[in-house]
Amino acid sequence: MAGNSFGNIFKLTTFGESHGVAIGGVIDGCPAGVELDLEEIQKEMDRRKPGQSAIVTQRKEPDTVEFYSGIFEGVTTGVPIGFVIKNANQKSKDYSHIKDAYRPSHADYTYDQKYGVRDYRGGGRSSARETASRVVAGAIAKQVLSGIKINAYVSAVGDIRLDKAHTDLDLTLTESTIVRCPDIEKSAEMEQYIKQIRKEGDTVGGVVSCVISGVPVGLGEPVFDRLHAELGKAMLSINAVKGFEYGSGFAGAVLKGSQHNDLFNRDGSTKTNMSGGIQGGISNGMDIYFNVAFKPVATIMQDQDTIDKEGNIVTMQGKGRHDPCVVPRAVPIVEAMAAMVIADYWLLNRASKI
Amino acid sequence: MAGNSFGNIFKLTTFGESHGVAIGGVIDGCPAGVELDLEEIQKEMDRRKPGQSAIVTQRKEPDTVEFYSGIFEGVTTGVPIGFVIKNANQKSKDYSHIKDAYRPSHADYTYDQKYGVRDYRGGGRSSARETASRVVAGAIAKQVLSGIKINAYVSAVGDIRLDKAHTDLDLTLTESTIVRCPDIEKSAEMEQYIKQIRKEGDTVGGVVSCVISGVPVGLGEPVFDRLHAELGKAMLSINAVKGFEYGSGFAGAVLKGSQHNDLFNRDGSTKTNMSGGIQGGISNGMDIYFNVAFKPVATIMQDQDTIDKEGNIVTMQGKGRHDPCVVPRAVPIVEAMAAMVIADYWLLNRASKI
Amino acid sequence: MAGNSFGNIFKLTTFGESHGVAIGGVIDGCPAGVELDLEEIQKEMDRRKPGQSAIVTQRKEPDTVEFYSGIFEGVTTGVPIGFVIKNANQKSKDYSHIKDAYRPSHADYTYDQKYGVRDYRGGGRSSARETASRVVAGAIAKQVLSGIKINAYVSAVGDIRLDKAHTDLDLTLTESTIVRCPDIEKSAEMEQYIKQIRKEGDTVGGVVSCVISGVPVGLGEPVFDRLHAELGKAMLSINAVKGFEYGSGFAGAVLKGSQHNDLFNRDGSTKTNMSGGIQGGISNGMDIYFNVAFKPVATIMQDQDTIDKEGNIVTMQGKGRHDPCVVPRAVPIVEAMAAMVIADYWLLNRASKI
Amino acid sequence: MAGNSFGNIFKLTTFGESHGVAIGGVIDGCPAGVELDLEEIQKEMDRRKPGQSAIVTQRKEPDTVEFYSGIFEGVTTGVPIGFVIKNANQKSKDYSHIKDAYRPSHADYTYDQKYGVRDYRGGGRSSARETASRVVAGAIAKQVLSGIKINAYVSAVGDIRLDKAHTDLDLTLTESTIVRCPDIEKSAEMEQYIKQIRKEGDTVGGVVSCVISGVPVGLGEPVFDRLHAELGKAMLSINAVKGFEYGSGFAGAVLKGSQHNDLFNRDGSTKTNMSGGIQGGISNGMDIYFNVAFKPVATIMQDQDTIDKEGNIVTMQGKGRHDPCVVPRAVPIVEAMAAMVIADYWLLNRASKI
Repeated sequence: MAGNSFGNIFKLTTFGESHGVAIGGVIDGCPAGVELDLEEIQKEMDRRKPGQSAIVTQRKEPDTVEFYSGIFEGVTTGVPIGFVIKNANQKSKDYSHIKDAYRPSHADYTYDQKYGVRDYRGGGRSSARETASRVVAGAIAKQVLSGIKINAYVSAVGDIRLDKAHTDLDLTLTESTIVRCPDIEKSAEMEQYIKQIRKEGDTVGGVVSCVISGVPVGLGEPVFDRLHAELGKAMLSINAVKGFEYGSGFAGAVLKGSQHNDLFNRDGSTKTNMSGGIQGGISNGMDIYFNVAFKPVATIMQDQDTIDKEGNIVTMQGKGRHDPCVVPRAVPIVEAMAAMVIADYWLLNRASKI
Repeated sequence: MAGNSFGNIFKLTTFGESHGVAIGGVIDGCPAGVELDLEEIQKEMDRRKPGQSAIVTQRKEPDTVEFYSGIFEGVTTGVPIGFVIKNANQKSKDYSHIKDAYRPSHADYTYDQKYGVRDYRGGGRSSARETASRVVAGAIAKQVLSGIKINAYVSAVGDIRLDKAHTDLDLTLTESTIVRCPDIEKSAEMEQYIKQIRKEGDTVGGVVSCVISGVPVGLGEPVFDRLHAELGKAMLSINAVKGFEYGSGFAGAVLKGSQHNDLFNRDGSTKTNMSGGIQGGISNGMDIYFNVAFKPVATIMQDQDTIDKEGNIVTMQGKGRHDPCVVPRAVPIVEAMAAMVIADYWLLNRASKI
Repeated sequence: MAGNSFGNIFKLTTFGESHGVAIGGVIDGCPAGVELDLEEIQKEMDRRKPGQSAIVTQRKEPDTVEFYSGIFEGVTTGVPIGFVIKNANQKSKDYSHIKDAYRPSHADYTYDQKYGVRDYRGGGRSSARETASRVVAGAIAKQVLSGIKINAYVSAVGDIRLDKAHTDLDLTLTESTIVRCPDIEKSAEMEQYIKQIRKEGDTVGGVVSCVISGVPVGLGEPVFDRLHAELGKAMLSINAVKGFEYGSGFAGAVLKGSQHNDLFNRDGSTKTNMSGGIQGGISNGMDIYFNVAFKPVATIMQDQDTIDKEGNIVTMQGKGRHDPCVVPRAVPIVEAMAAMVIADYWLLNRASKI
Repeated sequence: MAGNSFGNIFKLTTFGESHGVAIGGVIDGCPAGVELDLEEIQKEMDRRKPGQSAIVTQRKEPDTVEFYSGIFEGVTTGVPIGFVIKNANQKSKDYSHIKDAYRPSHADYTYDQKYGVRDYRGGGRSSARETASRVVAGAIAKQVLSGIKINAYVSAVGDIRLDKAHTDLDLTLTESTIVRCPDIEKSAEMEQYIKQIRKEGDTVGGVVSCVISGVPVGLGEPVFDRLHAELGKAMLSINAVKGFEYGSGFAGAVLKGSQHNDLFNRDGSTKTNMSGGIQGGISNGMDIYFNVAFKPVATIMQDQDTIDKEGNIVTMQGKGRHDPCVVPRAVPIVEAMAAMVIADYWLLNRASKI
């Protein structure tokens, strides 16, 4: 209802503002008996955290997750997993310049209008810092899903695009580049471009692609909770996302049925995979793949005219340490949301037959 | 949970298969005191129904909605609105050819795998016939939302694209064409193309665009239930949808922040609207607009190889009366889902402040 | 949210007023593969229907259930089961005497205040007629739960009480009496009392007890969705219910821990069953048993002073055909709600372990 | 679903075991703009905490609540309120005696069977320590509900009963006694009895009554989410509760309709209040009142035979510091759950009319 929970059975509820004491969450419905590798969880956190490379924000946040419940002797007990990530930087900044002014294309104006009050420090609840809690839950979801692989990667930065199908890529290379693009050449181009954009005091958008392999047949709850509809909502709930497409996507709208239909092999697999691993809203066992479009970060290091609460025009000065391009750090977030959806729908599917 | 409900407060639950006795649904949470124009509801049904023009399926279904509850002397009473749409055609067909065979890119295989049993007649639950119930609920949601306008239209059929912003279109023309494209010239081209495709026994995909005007500031429930995330899920839950983008969408991923940011006017409106009427997941009062990609219909009038339950290769003969292109009839469905989301979030927003 | 759905996975949504066209509902989440005995369902309906014996209302309603979806060749398909029960009597009555007046201890006043509008014919949505839909869903839930027995019976009518534990009763006798009390002597006393009450133009309350046997260990979702909490809500949602207690109940509050603790047998069963088959909110495999208190029906055949919409004192004349005592017909409703809870929690429990 | 959330709009999710690092929770949907009195919240915590008087457990837990989010400059911001209560005692005890043995009438056996694994230290998740988080949320709900008074009190300890209607009591006296019974004489009797029970190494049950005054007309969501059904579930979800009754309750089942009906005054109030402030599941503006039965605490200071995981009979020695009677400390918990229900339904009701 109030929007801070995600999932049906495997359900994450998050709390926390960028400059409060801490952020964190509760994972309810994680099945009992999962032996958790806590280092692996922290490793996922490190993929998302600020300051990890030369092309992301240079803010310092250790992003260490502390678990308060739900894990006993390294194993999930079936009761809620409560966790907290302290905000290291909470008191360090002066935010008076945005206290009364609304930053363009941020959530300042809409939060103020909706709630009548706003924690203006660094974006408050609307800050992408909240996604750190998603990465915790996603890392646990991944460990629930043994045998299922979830690999996201950067497929575009501005107009530099990786025009290859995921089946033509070596996804083990993704983490070897700071851009998180598995094509080494394209990755270098993208890196250059991001550095240039930063010098301009500007930002740029991009696309994250994701592949989920090893999904059993049968996940998805028609008619409204089709698997791709939930994946779409999951992705669209990430800060700065403007679009989602799966399988053939927008390009599929151009095709004819005779070109688009996926003919069967005798074992139920298909010769092509325009469907993107989902038919009628239910997984068919083929790779699930999708693209997520991210807009350029709204905080730029350039002066912009804007308004304050009284409607006066004021100048917003660009300052602070922000990401010139959000997609490298978005990769683990996309994976986390995907993992939560698959874990949730895998559990839901246990109830489909007598 | 089991996937056949949509919405939080204004909530639709649907039932029914294409060839059962009837389809229908229950709308729970429609506020009391709405004076309903029942003819207007039927008019929306007629926009979706088969046989309405030369370019859609020639199946005959009157699609008359009967209301069983929740409306007293023409006014909603706040209790659930139950409704039923009888299936006129339920016994007329022979479906033995798909009883054991799986049609390519349909849901036959995945339903059978998930549930172990399947009503194979005409797609059963996976048929787009189910969307008729959505149109009923959407038509009521529209009447709840006085002052808010929701206009969808066809913006692409195959590679014939309407490359104009919604602000450059006269949306009152949409219904004057059978394609439901408000650009008369493009509409004629599209109509020609659809007719040609049908002659080929083939089908083609397309894009439906939608504009929502007059939305108050403040709708949307961060962080997971951002307004556009729910709109995205709503659209992705419609049969044959492969993608969703709002505001600048995938094209926005190419831009720089300095190009993409929407600068404010003194009244809180913005000079540009890359944000698509939503910032931080909350409506900002500007037009909400989005695109929805539809794949080509999987049923084609050509022979295709496929498999049966035992994994034998069999020939699937194309027959029956299906839509060569789904987008003209999808227009009212897109509007209906949009109306339900906005009505639901409008009611949700009543709880945001003390 | 809006209150007309019950359950998490196995979920019933109902619609319909006592004097509208029809009542009915949608059961979502019934697992696929259940071979339904439709006659058995109608038999449950007949246990609830009016006119079945000399001590219940003499209204005539055949209460025939029609299924519109979700069942194919006698087997559930995993998709929603839509059903309708036509209102035979919908136009027969004159309700002008309650159009503007509020009947004491009915829901007339509160519905009017809450919704600002009300279907005043025969109670509208607040009529117990709505429970017919629950009996349909409960009858299906019973068939989902093979091996689990649910037996309710009347244990008190006014101050005539059946002071025996369920273990000292032969519950197969319940249906042999029109009161539905398995103790033949007490049953005769109760029947006499009800007849006398009816002659007085009055009504009387009573208690329904229920026993659920064969429940597997492990059902229940702490901490808020404890099994007995959901059973309690289920029962309290039935018209006219004023109280719920399980296991030792209110009498247990008087006892000492040394008297109340259930000591274990070696197989995990317990020597006594003060716990009522539930410990820590989770079933322990012993009989679940509980009591449900029903107030006297508010419609009496005597004149009462009351008020109209303008606050004028008016005389409400007792007329119509109502039950002098609701508990005999409440027995199948209590069973139905219990069956839905157990079916739902049985499905939920499939997700508790990896 | 997984049971650790309560509420629809005003929703609490809790986490934490009695001997983990911390317990806590997230309150989602608290409306923005509530000026919180944080001392008042801590005062409610102190009413529940151990060691507060001679008749409760002498465990030491400061139970200090720390807020991590959702409150800015003392005012709620509409985003989730995350909070944590550290466990002071987490490492102090030796729990090897219950590691493998199942304490009678505790949740040890059922948790082990359900989840296959269990945090055995001090009850883990099944400990009533979890209710501290409910008191936090309830204290906030009370502050949301200005003008509504919620007063619980002890009305029975064992067979010592306060046989007075709430209207004959001075509820301002409740907190002046350590039993929390507003009748000073009865309170003294109860206190004596509890002390004697403790000397015996035994425990005893009791009843908590609660009155809610000033509730506006119209709260409640028929048919399943009747206001009293949700209150009942709320109470039954508290540890050790065995029964719930509201208004006339079980005693009402004995009465005739002519005795039980609440006749109207001209202003819509009623001359009597058998209905307990709720008619047809919707509040009518009169006092809402109900009773909650608590069983005796299962931990007694006497030796009991029990079984271990292998089904061997072992002797469980009574030790530790537990409450001889739970009801004095249950009073603030009952109030907290009541406050959450009323706050939630008050917000829900904002959507009932156009």
